[in-house]
Amino acid sequence: MILAEVVDLHRAGAVLDWDQETYMPPGGVQNRSEQASTLSEVAHRRFTSDEVGRLLDDAEGAVAKMPFDSDEASLVRVTRRDYDLARKLPAELVAEIARSSSAARPFWQQARREANFAIFAPYLEKNIELNKRVAEALGYEKRPYDALLNRTEPGLTADQLEAIFAELKAAIVPLVADIKRHADAVDDSVLHRGFDPDKQIRYALDTVAALGYDLERGRQDISTHPFSIAFGPGDVRITTRVNRDFFNECLFGSIHEAGHGMYFQGIGRNLDRTTVWDGASPGVHESQSRLWENLVGRSLPFWHYFFPSLRKTFTEPLEGVDAEAFYRAVNKSYPSFIRVEADEVTYNLHVLLRFELENDMLEGRLKVRDVPEAWNELFKSYIGLDVPNDREGVLQDIHWSFVGFAEFPGYTLGNVISAQLMEKIRSDITDLDAHIERGEFATLLGWLQEHVYKHGRKFTPGELVERVTGGPLTPKPWIAYVRKKFGALYGLGLDRD
Amino acid sequence: MILAEVVDLHRAGAVLDWDQETYMPPGGVQNRSEQASTLSEVAHRRFTSDEVGRLLDDAEGAVAKMPFDSDEASLVRVTRRDYDLARKLPAELVAEIARSSSAARPFWQQARREANFAIFAPYLEKNIELNKRVAEALGYEKRPYDALLNRTEPGLTADQLEAIFAELKAAIVPLVADIKRHADAVDDSVLHRGFDPDKQIRYALDTVAALGYDLERGRQDISTHPFSIAFGPGDVRITTRVNRDFFNECLFGSIHEAGHGMYFQGIGRNLDRTTVWDGASPGVHESQSRLWENLVGRSLPFWHYFFPSLRKTFTEPLEGVDAEAFYRAVNKSYPSFIRVEADEVTYNLHVLLRFELENDMLEGRLKVRDVPEAWNELFKSYIGLDVPNDREGVLQDIHWSFVGFAEFPGYTLGNVISAQLMEKIRSDITDLDAHIERGEFATLLGWLQEHVYKHGRKFTPGELVERVTGGPLTPKPWIAYVRKKFGALYGLGLDRD
Repeated sequence: MILAEVVDLHRAGAVLDWDQETYMPPGGVQNRSEQASTLSEVAHRRFTSDEVGRLLDDAEGAVAKMPFDSDEASLVRVTRRDYDLARKLPAELVAEIARSSSAARPFWQQARREANFAIFAPYLEKNIELNKRVAEALGYEKRPYDALLNRTEPGLTADQLEAIFAELKAAIVPLVADIKRHADAVDDSVLHRGFDPDKQIRYALDTVAALGYDLERGRQDISTHPFSIAFGPGDVRITTRVNRDFFNECLFGSIHEAGHGMYFQGIGRNLDRTTVWDGASPGVHESQSRLWENLVGRSLPFWHYFFPSLRKTFTEPLEGVDAEAFYRAVNKSYPSFIRVEADEVTYNLHVLLRFELENDMLEGRLKVRDVPEAWNELFKSYIGLDVPNDREGVLQDIHWSFVGFAEFPGYTLGNVISAQLMEKIRSDITDLDAHIERGEFATLLGWLQEHVYKHGRKFTPGELVERVTGGPLTPKPWIAYVRKKFGALYGLGLDRD
Repeated sequence: MILAEVVDLHRAGAVLDWDQETYMPPGGVQNRSEQASTLSEVAHRRFTSDEVGRLLDDAEGAVAKMPFDSDEASLVRVTRRDYDLARKLPAELVAEIARSSSAARPFWQQARREANFAIFAPYLEKNIELNKRVAEALGYEKRPYDALLNRTEPGLTADQLEAIFAELKAAIVPLVADIKRHADAVDDSVLHRGFDPDKQIRYALDTVAALGYDLERGRQDISTHPFSIAFGPGDVRITTRVNRDFFNECLFGSIHEAGHGMYFQGIGRNLDRTTVWDGASPGVHESQSRLWENLVGRSLPFWHYFFPSLRKTFTEPLEGVDAEAFYRAVNKSYPSFIRVEADEVTYNLHVLLRFELENDMLEGRLKVRDVPEAWNELFKSYIGLDVPNDREGVLQDIHWSFVGFAEFPGYTLGNVISAQLMEKIRSDITDLDAHIERGEFATLLGWLQEHVYKHGRKFTPGELVERVTGGPLTPKPWIAYVRKKFGALYGLGLDRD
């Protein structure tokens, strides 16, 4: 009952967040931040109480002989992990982090607006220190990053990530260069021909409903940055945004968030109102948004099915365009400065850069004043572009304005895991493309619900991948996927490698 | 700090309520009711803790010599009243009320849908018993209703209300009969000529903004039943509804809710996040919605100002109509079955009927099975109509489906107080009508902020009326107002009485 109460408080906080990003009037900021911090404080106090510790001690005895993947054993195991982590953080550190984050935010905003890193530097300095203190409080064997990572992606280490990134970098950097040489092979001018915004929003909603996002238990609104958010199995919402002059934003934004949304909607109701009712980790969550957005939504069979209705909806801009041309357009790869606008090929390089810098800052190899230069150098070497200013460089992400190190790797884990799962899916559903081409997504969704969604947080990312694919986390399927797809799109002849 | 936390929890609960009435998908009901009940339980537990009692004991000493209307003394006095009331209700009774209310609701809905009182009867029986138990737990000197009323309208008694209602009844019943004989004097057919819904919503929003409802700290959405709700001084929202074939619903619904909204927005920021930050009582709150809706919005000077823009917005239905004809139309009085659709003249009779029946039920004079008949008899004698079925009679209001006796009188208190305040306002601002005719509402709003809004809950309804008007609560100004207004509208020659 205490846990259900804590879950309810967090979910209420999520409703407040959703409202803040969608409908809250400007004057509401101050009251809302009071309410949000009260909710999280009350939930934290309740969850970290001695009473929960005693209940856990008792429960651990009771479930000792139950199967690892039973609801009861999983609930106790996951709650214990959360509880121990939460108890390790002193209340005054938690409070200082909250204060520091909200103090830093306006200065990060100003710094970004004015492209002036110096304004933000002292706050980043402070946040590095707080990240270090969090790492010390949580404890780690080898590297401070491990402690932070263990909160978001339990079981993973910085060394493991480094190995994955090294493999990715070795494959992507030359691929980016290859694509650059063949840039003219893909023409995406059709995406910029002007698409009626209301129709885009409506089309996106119809599309995600066709994929399996349940609108009886969800809805789509507009926000500056798209997001998905769950208030329980019965209410999982997504947002999108729309740009008349760039088609990709709305539709792929919606599909991405609906991927998260279908994950939430598929978690077993037997786990509702427990600590286990959530995605396995940000990385696993991202594997679902990326799988639906890219591996499904940016595939040729997908466009064979959807293009005819798209063509009917947007007759003018799509005059003379066919499904294959449109498929090629939405997949155009081009190096760009902003992570959230990055294409499928370059995205992981944006993440790698941040991962390296965070480690360098945490381990004292990089001083705050040198961060912009380090950013720009890495960017040039990975993506081949000269960063024109800090707004389009080191100041672009909100994450470093709050004490949120070790959150970026989840984006790359998402890509990697999505391809690992898809490899397995294709061996289980051999005619997947034929299903997609007919607009039948229930087979795919059913598979994901059965193997991934219904388990909620029962398994760590590593456990889940092992359990589903039979092997450890590896970037190989993703590398094979992009090489094949983009090799074909750009005529790179990689299949002869 | 504990109080601020409790306020924040209630405000978070209010955000959840707002969302439920506006945007929540159908599947969200179960999760939302869990979250709402957790929030209210946590807030209740915190507020009724011994710690709050100790803090109150200390604070009472500290404020003993401060002025009655000081922030500090008021805060302690109001908190003490809330605390004592809350502590008097045993936790198991509170829980039983919550369970019983949510159990009753679907049966009330079904009963209403099927116009079959028998379906709802056992739940009403149970709710009467719970209301009695609440009254016993809270304690009263004379009548159980006093105990319930003291929660919503502190300081008022059933006897006082009876006297007010007697005076009202003596004036209204003959007035209704008079109007009936002159029914043809007012033609409201223009209201049913078809008004574009989107334009109505927009016009209503522009209108309430012109009155002074601050959209930087508010917004308007659509819901089945219009309501207003506050999450703090920075975020006070209203909803409205719209009917193409009946003009009054949207505009007057919006003005009504904006009256509540401006009250909330005007409460002193010095009182924010305390128990005093709220309207003085439901009755005083209603005085503001009714004042803006009826005494301002249904006045001739108001329409002299707004009609030209209305005419421009709705050229077709308003062809050949002038401000005075429109003023007469929106004021047409006709007896009707449904309280929430009642006009200004008959409204209080709907309330009186409920007030009498609630007392009869509480004091054991009326058995549940006889309630429909008693309703229909009273309705005939007060309003002169034969109730065709229980859907349009005893089953119309949601209030008796939860344990909410003694809530109806607030509607009549609102009418009564609005007229008392307006009498005083007109003696302070002698050219009020000229202001309104020029669309200048700041003088009126400023007066209300200064004399009513800024005080929040510092004063009981009786204290506030006494303080502002120099006299006790009395229905005389309201009676004089309706006799004058409707006497003129219907040519009843009442000024010669």
